[in-house]
Amino acid sequence: MYDCLPDSELCRPVKQRGEFVFAAVGLAHGHIFQMCRGLIEAGATLKWVYDDDASLVANFLVQFPQAKTACNVEQILLDNAVRLVASADIPSRRAPLGMRVMQSGKDFFSAKAPLINAEQLTAVKKTVSETGRKFAVFFSERLASEAAVYAGELISRGVIGRVIGVNILAPHKLGGERPAWFYRRDTAGGILIDIGSHQIEQFLYFTGNKNADILSSAVANFAHKEHGEFDDFGSCSLLGENGAVGHFVVDWFTPDGIGAFGDGRVFLTGTEGTIELRKYLDIGVSDETDTVIVATKSGVEKVCVRGKIGLPYFGRLIEDCLYRTQNAMSQEHIFSVMQLALAAQAGAVHLEH
Amino acid sequence: MYDCLPDSELCRPVKQRGEFVFAAVGLAHGHIFQMCRGLIEAGATLKWVYDDDASLVANFLVQFPQAKTACNVEQILLDNAVRLVASADIPSRRAPLGMRVMQSGKDFFSAKAPLINAEQLTAVKKTVSETGRKFAVFFSERLASEAAVYAGELISRGVIGRVIGVNILAPHKLGGERPAWFYRRDTAGGILIDIGSHQIEQFLYFTGNKNADILSSAVANFAHKEHGEFDDFGSCSLLGENGAVGHFVVDWFTPDGIGAFGDGRVFLTGTEGTIELRKYLDIGVSDETDTVIVATKSGVEKVCVRGKIGLPYFGRLIEDCLYRTQNAMSQEHIFSVMQLALAAQAGAVHLEH
Repeated sequence: MYDCLPDSELCRPVKQRGEFVFAAVGLAHGHIFQMCRGLIEAGATLKWVYDDDASLVANFLVQFPQAKTACNVEQILLDNAVRLVASADIPSRRAPLGMRVMQSGKDFFSAKAPLINAEQLTAVKKTVSETGRKFAVFFSERLASEAAVYAGELISRGVIGRVIGVNILAPHKLGGERPAWFYRRDTAGGILIDIGSHQIEQFLYFTGNKNADILSSAVANFAHKEHGEFDDFGSCSLLGENGAVGHFVVDWFTPDGIGAFGDGRVFLTGTEGTIELRKYLDIGVSDETDTVIVATKSGVEKVCVRGKIGLPYFGRLIEDCLYRTQNAMSQEHIFSVMQLALAAQAGAVHLEH
Repeated sequence: MYDCLPDSELCRPVKQRGEFVFAAVGLAHGHIFQMCRGLIEAGATLKWVYDDDASLVANFLVQFPQAKTACNVEQILLDNAVRLVASADIPSRRAPLGMRVMQSGKDFFSAKAPLINAEQLTAVKKTVSETGRKFAVFFSERLASEAAVYAGELISRGVIGRVIGVNILAPHKLGGERPAWFYRRDTAGGILIDIGSHQIEQFLYFTGNKNADILSSAVANFAHKEHGEFDDFGSCSLLGENGAVGHFVVDWFTPDGIGAFGDGRVFLTGTEGTIELRKYLDIGVSDETDTVIVATKSGVEKVCVRGKIGLPYFGRLIEDCLYRTQNAMSQEHIFSVMQLALAAQAGAVHLEH
């Protein structure tokens, strides 16, 4: 394994960061658990929780009994101790909540996708500009993947040369029936916004691009006709400003025989080598996560990096909020990702078969 | 492993096919060895060999000492015993040779790509129509891959339901310096014609499409500027007539640390399961070829099918020539593949960086 432990101090709780208090508002999606856990492990203090749905709050408190249940959002926004509000609300409600949070002087940390249409993007940009607050997004398919963090470090050290191609397969498992908002376009956006934004984020990051063009995109509902607005399949080709080419497929067709939510893969082609990530299982071999396969002129190395890298994102995010830096992820990057995701969805060929 | 031995009698020499004599003309590309070996193993008799370059002939005779060296192409075309001429000539010369062969009343069997521009395609179609002869093409990345043959059988038995997505990574190794024709557009066509045609063929075959649209395509010369006309990278997105979506990447960036010529992968997404092919090695694990991973609702199976499936193509091709059937591959399919490959190359975004 390459010696690539990124900022390891950021992967551990850092008490000397000082007290960093946050709240969880909007629990519709399970990502809120990962977001809160990550912040707490990096040293933050969870003070409040709120959701309109009391059953979601009750479920949340099982894992986070330290949180106090607020009577409403306002109560949290009026608490000067709170620096950050984390949310995995219904997607269409994330941007409105985020703007309200930022206008109250706090930073906002959203599950992806943090917004679902161009109007929301414009409004969020304006609010960020006016308030100087952060609109952070948890693109977990990279930020919560040690394999992906390791790949980023390898690339930054030049191990595979210049990254010219990124190919991502990001299948997901539907599981049982989901809440109605999950299937509706006006609440969930569409597959290229929802799980597509993850992939666009990875493309820009791994290729070092600030922006890209959409070469083509497509969405389909192949096998879930009972949900007429739902996309169960999407794909997109991207061309980065520096000439790197990307492609991703997102779908809801992970077979039940696969234990993980999906056999997520990333293939990075560099001028001097390649990297493959098997993020959530090594299919046909083991359920072990975070397999990384690096091929260069010297040879091939297959390694499981689970537990060896850590997730520096949360520590960096807390420090960014405290010191007004942008080391975890720049605001511009987030806006580029979402602009591209919206464009990919809006311009997608609809496969009607 | 699923019980999927396709037409196993076709994978063995079939003497009762009767004498089937062929010749090899044009040895510029090493594929000629695989083509001749496949035909001979399926029961054909190699009678003649010819190339302008005597050193290529000498090299060929080491492996096929039974072949007689012809003085020129005409000598072979005048031999009524010869039913088929196989060729891996310089790509730009394949179609002209093929037309000459068909006009002499024999079938033609070309390495891919069998032609490199629209004029050649039109002329070949006309000659096939006028002569009733076959213009067969050895799309070896499927036809010579037991993993791919097995996948085709699984699909035809409905193991993964309807195939909605095909994603192919087809990196290749450049090795040392190649002959000048390899780098020139007027002799080799371009990467989406050359190694792209393989991938388009697989997309149409695995999805059961007769035709498709090109959604987008791109080519680049990222790292071989000394060969100004050469594409070292290409990608293409396809939309099949039945709504299935395909994408492939082809490149010449296989790192030297990988023993095989490339870590060729095919990912098939069905409504009821997925199939992954690791054709030429199981990277980071072994150099064993033909790994197939099938996931369905019942579970995941990883199996090496090397030596268990056979390659029915050659036996079928011989029988097609004898009985004027089209079981190995239809002529229409070949023309669709090449029309799409030409369109992908002609319409490609050129990445100039």
